[in-house]
Amino acid sequence: MFKTVVIVGAGNVAYHLTRALLENTVNLVQIFNRTLSKAQLLAENYNISYTDKISEIKKADIYIICTSDDAISEISYYIPFDDCLVVHTSGSTPISALKGKYRKGVFYPLQTFTQGRSLEYDKIPFFIEAENSSDEGALLALAERISEESYLVDYEKRMKIHMAGVWANNFTNHLYLIAEEICKKQEIPFDALKSIIKEGVDKLVDGVSPYDAQTGPARRLDKSVIEKHLSILEATDSKLFQIYNLLTESIIKLYHEKL
Amino acid sequence: MFKTVVIVGAGNVAYHLTRALLENTVNLVQIFNRTLSKAQLLAENYNISYTDKISEIKKADIYIICTSDDAISEISYYIPFDDCLVVHTSGSTPISALKGKYRKGVFYPLQTFTQGRSLEYDKIPFFIEAENSSDEGALLALAERISEESYLVDYEKRMKIHMAGVWANNFTNHLYLIAEEICKKQEIPFDALKSIIKEGVDKLVDGVSPYDAQTGPARRLDKSVIEKHLSILEATDSKLFQIYNLLTESIIKLYHEKL
Repeated sequence: MFKTVVIVGAGNVAYHLTRALLENTVNLVQIFNRTLSKAQLLAENYNISYTDKISEIKKADIYIICTSDDAISEISYYIPFDDCLVVHTSGSTPISALKGKYRKGVFYPLQTFTQGRSLEYDKIPFFIEAENSSDEGALLALAERISEESYLVDYEKRMKIHMAGVWANNFTNHLYLIAEEICKKQEIPFDALKSIIKEGVDKLVDGVSPYDAQTGPARRLDKSVIEKHLSILEATDSKLFQIYNLLTESIIKLYHEKL
Repeated sequence: MFKTVVIVGAGNVAYHLTRALLENTVNLVQIFNRTLSKAQLLAENYNISYTDKISEIKKADIYIICTSDDAISEISYYIPFDDCLVVHTSGSTPISALKGKYRKGVFYPLQTFTQGRSLEYDKIPFFIEAENSSDEGALLALAERISEESYLVDYEKRMKIHMAGVWANNFTNHLYLIAEEICKKQEIPFDALKSIIKEGVDKLVDGVSPYDAQTGPARRLDKSVIEKHLSILEATDSKLFQIYNLLTESIIKLYHEKL
């Protein structure tokens, strides 16, 4: 187990990992960030040491880099110790992005992080990789301090899981925006959609599979409604027309074109 | 206000409207359904009269047809009274689908209904139409007995709002299924996605707009990750490749190609 942890970065992931570690009484000794004011803002809340100077980075068992993907390599150079583990938290970055002589790993939480929001950390799955099995075991143990779910996966798998998150979160959010815009044009507020949006997800969280939860005109092959919707979109937005068409075809294929 | 209500149908919508009306002490006098056993199953729970015989349909102020879109016209013929209001509950069916000499209207709840699930009826918006303003007023009053949100909209608007529901519920559910399949291929259970799925919707329910809630590679124009994901999909599924590409282009257009 890691006795001492340093968080590198002070953005959304750093904010939530800091909280998750402290809530689970992990010994977080410092926050290192290139912009001091941000490190200070995060660290002072919890009475942790912070710095923006490489010379002041504390010695620790593990450094968790929580920066954007682009910044991982550069900041990983700054960690001035060899006898430690350094991990990044990115879903789509190989372990080789880490550039020091230390041992290396990955500690990827599958979640969308927003500062100031409260999250159930014990429900966030962690995807772990390390260069040796001893570090893998220690990372799994660290993840298990925070969460009920953790998995050992290599880069190829992690990238695909990250992509699943893009479908499940980023793309669905964009569909909510499309739905909001359709409503706004009819002078109906986004609030009117929240009940159906919430129920759609509540069903899944309660254990209904996406396959069984599917409803709507494509699911029941209601060509008359599909054509009405397509003709509305054809007249207003060719991109939405294409997306509607592809998603509808994909649903029809799944439910009505089985062998 | 309507003093007496008959529900026509015994499926998902009938199940939930029955509960919603009874919870709000509306005087529901009968359930009429062409399959007696289903009417019985629903009505007996609440000690309401039920029938499958036209000759036994009770006189009421309003008949709420809760059948599938296809069945509305046929069943609307059976209502043997003229001095009453008959409404259907469909988002994409014109008022003219109702075929009797009675007064006509629409009482459309924007929600996805599953029998046996509990729903917060006061959060479900109702979209109302009638042939005269007195019936519109009475339908609004009925909706307000159940829900905090109700709107008067004509067929054109209602169809577009229904389409917004398709984007917000049916299509997002299909994206969850796609994400589930990607995870399953990596031997990761769907449960691992539930935390990010839930948080994506919790943010919106808590008042973050879909515009502000957007994250991910397309939002930050991370071409390297987008290309990795597209190359994974190109090799495995041309339909998913197209959908990924269109959704990504649509997000990029929104955030990075503004005038």
